[in-house]
Amino acid sequence: MIKVDVKVLRLNHRRIRDARITTHVCLTARAFGASGLFLDGDHDQKLIKNVQDVVKRWGGSFQMDYEKNWSNLLDEWKKSGGEIVHLTMYGEPVQKVTSTIKKSKKNKLVVVGGSRVPTKVYEEADWNVAVTGQPHSEVSALAIFLHLLFEGKELDLEFEGGEIKVLPLAKGKKVIIDQG
Amino acid sequence: MIKVDVKVLRLNHRRIRDARITTHVCLTARAFGASGLFLDGDHDQKLIKNVQDVVKRWGGSFQMDYEKNWSNLLDEWKKSGGEIVHLTMYGEPVQKVTSTIKKSKKNKLVVVGGSRVPTKVYEEADWNVAVTGQPHSEVSALAIFLHLLFEGKELDLEFEGGEIKVLPLAKGKKVIIDQG
Repeated sequence: MIKVDVKVLRLNHRRIRDARITTHVCLTARAFGASGLFLDGDHDQKLIKNVQDVVKRWGGSFQMDYEKNWSNLLDEWKKSGGEIVHLTMYGEPVQKVTSTIKKSKKNKLVVVGGSRVPTKVYEEADWNVAVTGQPHSEVSALAIFLHLLFEGKELDLEFEGGEIKVLPLAKGKKVIIDQG
Repeated sequence: MIKVDVKVLRLNHRRIRDARITTHVCLTARAFGASGLFLDGDHDQKLIKNVQDVVKRWGGSFQMDYEKNWSNLLDEWKKSGGEIVHLTMYGEPVQKVTSTIKKSKKNKLVVVGGSRVPTKVYEEADWNVAVTGQPHSEVSALAIFLHLLFEGKELDLEFEGGEIKVLPLAKGKKVIIDQG
């Protein structure tokens, strides 16, 4: 897996309307190899706790942070030498641009909207990346981008230190639970 | 792109709780090359109409159907020579099993849950497929499975006959709108 730290910024989270979609964004970020997520918009402590509970039970060290000023975060991220990838249907095709993105070993902040994404995000982004030019979901866009960035190796990630682990099976369900 | 017809079955849709997630499942199915979706659970006509509106505006021929008996659908699908792929975190790793699935040229029904998936689904499925053994999202699981099944070629799909089309751009937004 490429050796860059990837974090996700979820813009404009709205506590009631977006609770489930944002949760899926967080869990997808974690499952596909990002190391953490910054939540912008409502300071939804229940959502943050839910994701932290998943991390505790399922392992790994995914970091959840509330970010009250996304604009500062973009500036700080770039100042500290990181790069910004903004996922938007209006951007350049992911299948064309990801090979260039992979060449840089700088840490990546992957930004996902949000209904209305401010112009500054398009301008500050090192890459505006489209996972198809069709409307679908920030959840699938994030999964596909991370999958291409990590070249499929994220599918073999192991999450250390969790209490629960699934054993792959052709039929049925089997889990190992660490009773501590 | 492999020449099989792929449809999706969304199990146990609940009108209020699942409206947005199921919409994202439908749009992901369409954007990533499935030809239609069967909706199980609540007969949510507003959701069906919303997706049909996207199809009208953005092109292609994605088919939305309400299915009142998922069990019959599985039986009929198999009787008519199709195969069933059930996406579940308890299944076999997608990165190992997709090459086998691709060898068969039979039509595929891709089943996505639902909180509680009945045992019959696991048993009737030709393949129970895990997109990681971690909790994340049926939306990202579907996107990754279709991406691997179609070998990335779905990212270049053209949707004919729509009124609106995005022009890929490094910065900013550009769309072509067919005013009819």
